[in-house]
Amino acid sequence: MNIALLFEDDFIDDDTAVVTDRRLKHLQQIRDIKLGDQIGVGQADGLLGDATVVELDSESATLKIIWNKQPPAPLPVTLIIALPRPKMVKRIIQTIATMGVKELYFINTYKVEKSFWQSPWLTEAKLLENIILGLEQAMDTRLPKIHLRKRFKPFVEDELTGISKDSLRLVAHPSDSQDCPIQVKQQTTLVIGPEGGFIPYEIEKLEACGFTPVSLGDRILRTETAVPVLLAKLF
Amino acid sequence: MNIALLFEDDFIDDDTAVVTDRRLKHLQQIRDIKLGDQIGVGQADGLLGDATVVELDSESATLKIIWNKQPPAPLPVTLIIALPRPKMVKRIIQTIATMGVKELYFINTYKVEKSFWQSPWLTEAKLLENIILGLEQAMDTRLPKIHLRKRFKPFVEDELTGISKDSLRLVAHPSDSQDCPIQVKQQTTLVIGPEGGFIPYEIEKLEACGFTPVSLGDRILRTETAVPVLLAKLF
Repeated sequence: MNIALLFEDDFIDDDTAVVTDRRLKHLQQIRDIKLGDQIGVGQADGLLGDATVVELDSESATLKIIWNKQPPAPLPVTLIIALPRPKMVKRIIQTIATMGVKELYFINTYKVEKSFWQSPWLTEAKLLENIILGLEQAMDTRLPKIHLRKRFKPFVEDELTGISKDSLRLVAHPSDSQDCPIQVKQQTTLVIGPEGGFIPYEIEKLEACGFTPVSLGDRILRTETAVPVLLAKLF
Repeated sequence: MNIALLFEDDFIDDDTAVVTDRRLKHLQQIRDIKLGDQIGVGQADGLLGDATVVELDSESATLKIIWNKQPPAPLPVTLIIALPRPKMVKRIIQTIATMGVKELYFINTYKVEKSFWQSPWLTEAKLLENIILGLEQAMDTRLPKIHLRKRFKPFVEDELTGISKDSLRLVAHPSDSQDCPIQVKQQTTLVIGPEGGFIPYEIEKLEACGFTPVSLGDRILRTETAVPVLLAKLF
């Protein structure tokens, strides 16, 4: 937690906030804050600031804040990922939030196991919890939007053209593809398949929608590794 | 598990192996193999091959192998990482093994908590277990070497010059550094600091040893994310 991210309910007025819950616990137990200490804060979807601890007890910390900095620039990418197994979801959410992705779609594909959609990590509360952890790590304030799409064909046929309009359209797909481009720095829509990959029908549907298959080489990466690797190469 | 990695004890002769343990369980429960099926295999520090299941029961699978392919090229990098908290060690080992790192040093620094060195993930057996999982994911056979160095000063003063000889020497360090170079493709020694970063004394020692501080931008990444991001940018 490199900043504490603050939400509307935390504020008494524009530059005073009262922090409780996980954030207070972290500040007291890990950071060992004292009255008068300075800590970094951010306002959800707003500015970054420096806060002074003006009141402190075991229940809450009151922060007086000077807002002074824009959050870091987002990555110009919309990420579309075949829903991975539940234990990976948590880490992927934190990673994409830390790296600056602001639009993420989890989609169904032939090789996504149906049970994955029952994952407790996909509830709104759990998604938000891991988004916040990722943003606090990166000192970012802008919350990414996460969309769940449980049917592949309607998503590709009805939504994907609109989502990917005027962007570079890439699908990570190992076999015989061209190398993933480097440092493209333009608006990009990036699709990442499931363990076991897309089936040919799915690749055909994506190609028909303007997507080019690209590869990261011979080594097959887990989704949780492929995400930071692809983002690091592209931006 | 995209291949089953085989060790000396698994072989009956040069092209016949008997698989038991976790690998058998995976082949039966996840892959649902049957007599006559083909699976990918690799020989530890040797070739890749195609294996046919010639005998199969609940205790073991006997594989007849045709060796036919070199493992993928290693990354030209020696990685030196301030020992992260225990739960990250497992994932970092798997990641570096999957991505093709063959030399990894975990080192002590001022901000590494002493208790981290007691982690059960640092035992030889646990390190090997996670190396194998990483290699099987990448379809690689060459085992990385992992070195533990519990004292920073002797490591930097007595070993680091030799380890990093004739290589590009970089230390990932956020503040005011130049951007991390892209696609260097030359032999590189890369140092990654702890949560909270290196202290100035440590950066000075590394600079004195020829290391240049480089940055990934404003966003502070966890070690487990910084590792794949840095490797993806450099190679």
